[in-house]
Amino acid sequence: MRARRGLREEAVLTDSLKHGRTLSSKELGRIICSIKKSSNFWRIVELSRQPLPVVAEVLSSLIDKGYLRVDDGRVLFSKDLSGLDLQDTVDFDESRCRGCNGRGLDMDRYSDLLKRFREIAKARPSALREFDQGFVSEETTIARVALMHRWADIKGKEIVLIGDDDLLSIGLWLTGMPERIVVLEIDERLTSFIRDVTGGTVEVRGYDVRRPLPEDLVGAFDVFFTDPTESLEGFKVFALRGMLSLRGDGAGYFGLTRVEASLNKWYEIQGFLHQCGFVITDIIDEFNHYQDWDYYQDTRAYSIAPVKIEPIPYWYKSSQIRIERVIERDLDNSEVTGLIYFDEESSTV
Amino acid sequence: MRARRGLREEAVLTDSLKHGRTLSSKELGRIICSIKKSSNFWRIVELSRQPLPVVAEVLSSLIDKGYLRVDDGRVLFSKDLSGLDLQDTVDFDESRCRGCNGRGLDMDRYSDLLKRFREIAKARPSALREFDQGFVSEETTIARVALMHRWADIKGKEIVLIGDDDLLSIGLWLTGMPERIVVLEIDERLTSFIRDVTGGTVEVRGYDVRRPLPEDLVGAFDVFFTDPTESLEGFKVFALRGMLSLRGDGAGYFGLTRVEASLNKWYEIQGFLHQCGFVITDIIDEFNHYQDWDYYQDTRAYSIAPVKIEPIPYWYKSSQIRIERVIERDLDNSEVTGLIYFDEESSTV
Repeated sequence: MRARRGLREEAVLTDSLKHGRTLSSKELGRIICSIKKSSNFWRIVELSRQPLPVVAEVLSSLIDKGYLRVDDGRVLFSKDLSGLDLQDTVDFDESRCRGCNGRGLDMDRYSDLLKRFREIAKARPSALREFDQGFVSEETTIARVALMHRWADIKGKEIVLIGDDDLLSIGLWLTGMPERIVVLEIDERLTSFIRDVTGGTVEVRGYDVRRPLPEDLVGAFDVFFTDPTESLEGFKVFALRGMLSLRGDGAGYFGLTRVEASLNKWYEIQGFLHQCGFVITDIIDEFNHYQDWDYYQDTRAYSIAPVKIEPIPYWYKSSQIRIERVIERDLDNSEVTGLIYFDEESSTV
Repeated sequence: MRARRGLREEAVLTDSLKHGRTLSSKELGRIICSIKKSSNFWRIVELSRQPLPVVAEVLSSLIDKGYLRVDDGRVLFSKDLSGLDLQDTVDFDESRCRGCNGRGLDMDRYSDLLKRFREIAKARPSALREFDQGFVSEETTIARVALMHRWADIKGKEIVLIGDDDLLSIGLWLTGMPERIVVLEIDERLTSFIRDVTGGTVEVRGYDVRRPLPEDLVGAFDVFFTDPTESLEGFKVFALRGMLSLRGDGAGYFGLTRVEASLNKWYEIQGFLHQCGFVITDIIDEFNHYQDWDYYQDTRAYSIAPVKIEPIPYWYKSSQIRIERVIERDLDNSEVTGLIYFDEESSTV
């Protein structure tokens, strides 16, 4: 959008993008700057803060045009990019606090909880591609507990989790503070595991998010937590079930990535939340750190990656978002049919 | 909103609230829990995360009804609140990382910058009530620099600051990275100070935010930063001038408190940002820590406080919010008349 800076060259680079969008010099600059900071494809995607398919295409295009080369799995510059007139106009430094991994929370007082949780999680079921699973680090799960407790969303509260491959229900249960925890989960390996560990204290129900939220759960909770799939339609379904589950001024939590959701999608999502009567109280960058998937070689991400190497730990992160209802609105609880897990920005399904 | 828990008693407590709103048990519970955590009025307001006039009224009402008493400037319980059936259903623990003060940023690599900035800021002009001034800690100003650099919003960028009693322009100038820094500021003490310190490298212009943004500044920047007044109308004026200053997919930063803005106001603001075509990328809780005002005894906050004691350091904090344009919309640049600094949630003017 900045005509004065190499716009022509950028167009050359990006006119082949498939999704009908043109990258701005800001977006392109961030990708190029990320390549300077790392030669690892997955880390470049992480640093770029743009949908993986976009980053993969830009890299492929730069490789085709001879600006980049791949050497032993590493992405390297072949020639000076000064013709693109970008390299001096974009730089960044993530400079995350090492004490808290950038989340801002003091986890020292949660160290016992984390230890107990880790012990239990050793026996957890592995992630399944069938349900778009991919769970967060144990540290992340307990950081979610800390965040929820900051907001008074645990003690004495009735909490529903829509999908729980992260085992947050167990983390919450270990605090002994919630009044009620209900897990709605499609995967029977997880429902059995959670039921066994908590001796039935955590209520577990088989549930497919495409079905309406059961009547007895509508308006029955103070807090929901979900880690939705990130196709726009899929996200809305997860969010709606969560919002429907709340009474009054209840609060909700969900993650949202930049890897599978462009800022345009974020914008659509924020408009949707507002329409539904919810305010956003927190957006914490890179709060959720995901473990690698056992099934990574079957993902679209791997198939379109210009470099076929194993993902590095925690390249896939998401912002943690918290919302709170301020206005009562009628919300749709109808059944959804068809596949909701995929759109053109998706890549880990 | 939860009939099963002491709603009647809450109504007794809150039916006298002046603003025509009823507190939910969640809001009231958080205030009561805050009183348990601190006997200091300012700290109770901070912990409550609700507009100061609301907290002040609830406290006054609880004092009138004999639940609380004031002893030597401290707020203390007079009797058991079990009749209110609230104390076991709300608890929270802020548990902020001590390394980064909860901001999530590694400030070690900014320690030299902070040192140089502190040296310069020693000679800064004091805060003036006339312009709703009240500046942030030096650490906060440099944390803003770190946050902006995380987002690639400094290096090679053209940046405009709308109001700058926090001297962020000087912090940015010290990095040597921006292409251009413009400060629009009404207070001549500040414009002179910034001009003197930076030897004119930072462009400084006298500007009253109620006037339209000058034509040559419309669409001229990559980034704006402002710390707006928090009346809804006042906020919109500051935000509009900032959004108008941006080209293309530019980014904006501003602070927003809970002390002077209810979540209802946050909701209005978020709807407004969405309408204007902007997405929110970050909301970082309690990022900005404000110094005390020399004029605190003249504020509404002090006059309605049920306890007349000097404010404690940094009781007044705000979330740091970052937005980015995703859709071009026509934005209003007309002149605004009248007082924009005050609404019923305001208290530090």
